[in-house]
Amino acid sequence: MAEPGKVGVAVVGCGTVGGGVCALLTRDGRTLAQRTGRQIELRHVVDVDFTRAKALGLDASLLRTSLDDALNDPQTAIVCELVGGTTFAKALIERALRAGKHVVTANKALLAHHGPELYALARERGVSIAFEASCAGGIPIIRALLDGLLANRIDALYGIVNGTCNSILTAMTQRGQSYADALQDAQRLGLAEADPTLDVGGGDSAHKLAILAALAFGQRIDLDAIPTEGIDRLQLRDLQYGQELGYVIKLLAIAQQREDGLSLRVRPVFIHRDHPLAWVSGPFNAVSVYGHAVGHTMYYGRGAGASPTASAVVADIASIALGTYPRLFTDLPLFPDRAEQATQLPLAAVQSRYYLRFSVEDKPGVLGQITTELGSQGISISSVLQHEPPDGSGDDAGVPVVVTTARAMEGNVRTALAALDGLGAIKGPTVCLGIVDEHEEELS
Amino acid sequence: MAEPGKVGVAVVGCGTVGGGVCALLTRDGRTLAQRTGRQIELRHVVDVDFTRAKALGLDASLLRTSLDDALNDPQTAIVCELVGGTTFAKALIERALRAGKHVVTANKALLAHHGPELYALARERGVSIAFEASCAGGIPIIRALLDGLLANRIDALYGIVNGTCNSILTAMTQRGQSYADALQDAQRLGLAEADPTLDVGGGDSAHKLAILAALAFGQRIDLDAIPTEGIDRLQLRDLQYGQELGYVIKLLAIAQQREDGLSLRVRPVFIHRDHPLAWVSGPFNAVSVYGHAVGHTMYYGRGAGASPTASAVVADIASIALGTYPRLFTDLPLFPDRAEQATQLPLAAVQSRYYLRFSVEDKPGVLGQITTELGSQGISISSVLQHEPPDGSGDDAGVPVVVTTARAMEGNVRTALAALDGLGAIKGPTVCLGIVDEHEEELS
Repeated sequence: MAEPGKVGVAVVGCGTVGGGVCALLTRDGRTLAQRTGRQIELRHVVDVDFTRAKALGLDASLLRTSLDDALNDPQTAIVCELVGGTTFAKALIERALRAGKHVVTANKALLAHHGPELYALARERGVSIAFEASCAGGIPIIRALLDGLLANRIDALYGIVNGTCNSILTAMTQRGQSYADALQDAQRLGLAEADPTLDVGGGDSAHKLAILAALAFGQRIDLDAIPTEGIDRLQLRDLQYGQELGYVIKLLAIAQQREDGLSLRVRPVFIHRDHPLAWVSGPFNAVSVYGHAVGHTMYYGRGAGASPTASAVVADIASIALGTYPRLFTDLPLFPDRAEQATQLPLAAVQSRYYLRFSVEDKPGVLGQITTELGSQGISISSVLQHEPPDGSGDDAGVPVVVTTARAMEGNVRTALAALDGLGAIKGPTVCLGIVDEHEEELS
Repeated sequence: MAEPGKVGVAVVGCGTVGGGVCALLTRDGRTLAQRTGRQIELRHVVDVDFTRAKALGLDASLLRTSLDDALNDPQTAIVCELVGGTTFAKALIERALRAGKHVVTANKALLAHHGPELYALARERGVSIAFEASCAGGIPIIRALLDGLLANRIDALYGIVNGTCNSILTAMTQRGQSYADALQDAQRLGLAEADPTLDVGGGDSAHKLAILAALAFGQRIDLDAIPTEGIDRLQLRDLQYGQELGYVIKLLAIAQQREDGLSLRVRPVFIHRDHPLAWVSGPFNAVSVYGHAVGHTMYYGRGAGASPTASAVVADIASIALGTYPRLFTDLPLFPDRAEQATQLPLAAVQSRYYLRFSVEDKPGVLGQITTELGSQGISISSVLQHEPPDGSGDDAGVPVVVTTARAMEGNVRTALAALDGLGAIKGPTVCLGIVDEHEEELS
């Protein structure tokens, strides 16, 4: 077995994040030893492409094309899975666990889909899976949930957990760019992938929400039952109307514990410009957590990138080396493999305020029809914004009328909108966006 | 000894925070057990005044006037010191440690003054001292430094760590109140003590800075060598000039690791309204930490109050019950009793931008004298603000001229100001406040 105080690590997947981890473990090895009191030794770098490994100047003796060397090495206690994806990555984590290795991973998709079965396998083998880097990059949010906030019943969690989306929305808001232009710029700057679907469609945020909500509430989450809407259909004009009303748009991952169940969703929503998450710009992430004792706490930092993500991966390695994370993993009842299935509420049960943009025929009485229909569903109007139409604007697309509502049930809003869509006076599809007010603390 | 999974706790001092801890341990005991997997049992409440204990409906059998029962109880593993002060509290912590009890405390003054000797005593006895609640209330910032950010060499730390000061400054800024009026309101609202000196004089922030900087940089800090300036001499007019220039005032606890040493200070400074700490208002606290790998991370929450502080105390209790905190306390080389003494830089070595308000004689050439004198110390001017004097304003107090400088050494600024004070054209004391720009991340 390993020498006391000495811990061997294998990094599988030496791409952006894997390379960052290797750099941190080698170049900064002395700092790390001084801060952790542990000798953390990089012993294996497993990949099929060593371009990045060579660019980093990693010792050639570390590079391997097969996982076997790492799994057979009794000095290697920890395997970092940094290849991504949900098939090969899953198989390799299972092999590592079966070989009695602790696993550190940044793979949110895999954990959101298969976390519980992997956690159960880890327990069976007496090891742990750590995944600080899977949510919100370098921000130590998993630790906050598993440790710093342990005395709290969590009431709600609101996260900006996708830096790509936040960069695009920031550009649209601050520079008045269209979604398509902002996406293109983000791709050019390396802030968005060539195929951006998982980010801009909200799927990546849903993965992170599933992981965070499971730990926050100590419940098992059904990823597929999280209503998820991306930023890819947002129109600049709605962001601009929102700004006029004092709001900024953010893609939020939301989890609210209610008496009747857990309300989870990912979607672009308006928040007031004074909201604690409104200033979070560009590629940064932030997660607000509301506990019954602590009230509002918020955690902010870089949500992606080689070295911020490596910071989280290496913190996990250090916690395993110190024995603290394995203790939490073993003893806390919060992990979803030992928790009950959450009662996830449907979108119709969401309670929120709403921004509605109607495209109406320019004739008397239409606003009356709208307010009457909303009123018949018990929905009060909070504000109306209608500008004088510019000269020569055609009637075809209709005149935009923006209405914000008081707090209402989403189901009722949808019913009212469906009824209004049937009216001849509504000329186009109505835009409906949630307005999320600052969560009220319920301090005990 | 205690039953497995069962941990006994004594709370010493049942005032605001102690009462909050007792409430959390009893009223929410079931939630706590569900979240931690540990039975945490309140076994002793030690005080001489049980007004609060009785108001909380605590079982009379728990109340004691002597610590001895708790120290002699083998089922009690953890003693929470929540009496405050530095004499009686120190003696009681020493007794608890000598009796082999872990100690949880919120006592920043005590730890800032005597932390190292108490930590050393704890180690000698094989127990630990946990103090999450000592800095920034409910925010899990100590854990971030000891765990989540462990892979980082910390470059800098900036904290708004005193809610009383932040409330007063928020009121001055947002409502245009004078310092005296804002203080009085804060006292009426229970946000400031009857004797507010420790808060408004900056001493409390310095205590917290000493504790945080020690762990962040793994160095031993000399509290008395932290230059500390409070908010009690701030004039509303300077806040207003600052606002005109785009700045808000905050009492910041600052720690910057430089090649030549550690620059620590507590003082009211201007930060730009877009600075990540500018929005932190009222009684809330926030701490920005810059790590070489993670970049900027920030932690926000309530810095005081019964239940937020109790959240941190009970998190410490849970971490001791789980065995994770004792492991960090024992194994991490970051605690100041085993660290080297920091090289603390003097105020003259601070590098910053500055806001200077001169009161000058209203005659030609004075601004020229100012810029010449600053220039002779190598200080460039960044902006000048001088309003036309209102009619009938006397010449006695002089005309205000506000100058902001480029980055300069504080020693040079002080030298220039001293030289200028000797000129007849300067009619009154010059106000000098630092302008703290957003720290530049140095991502590896």
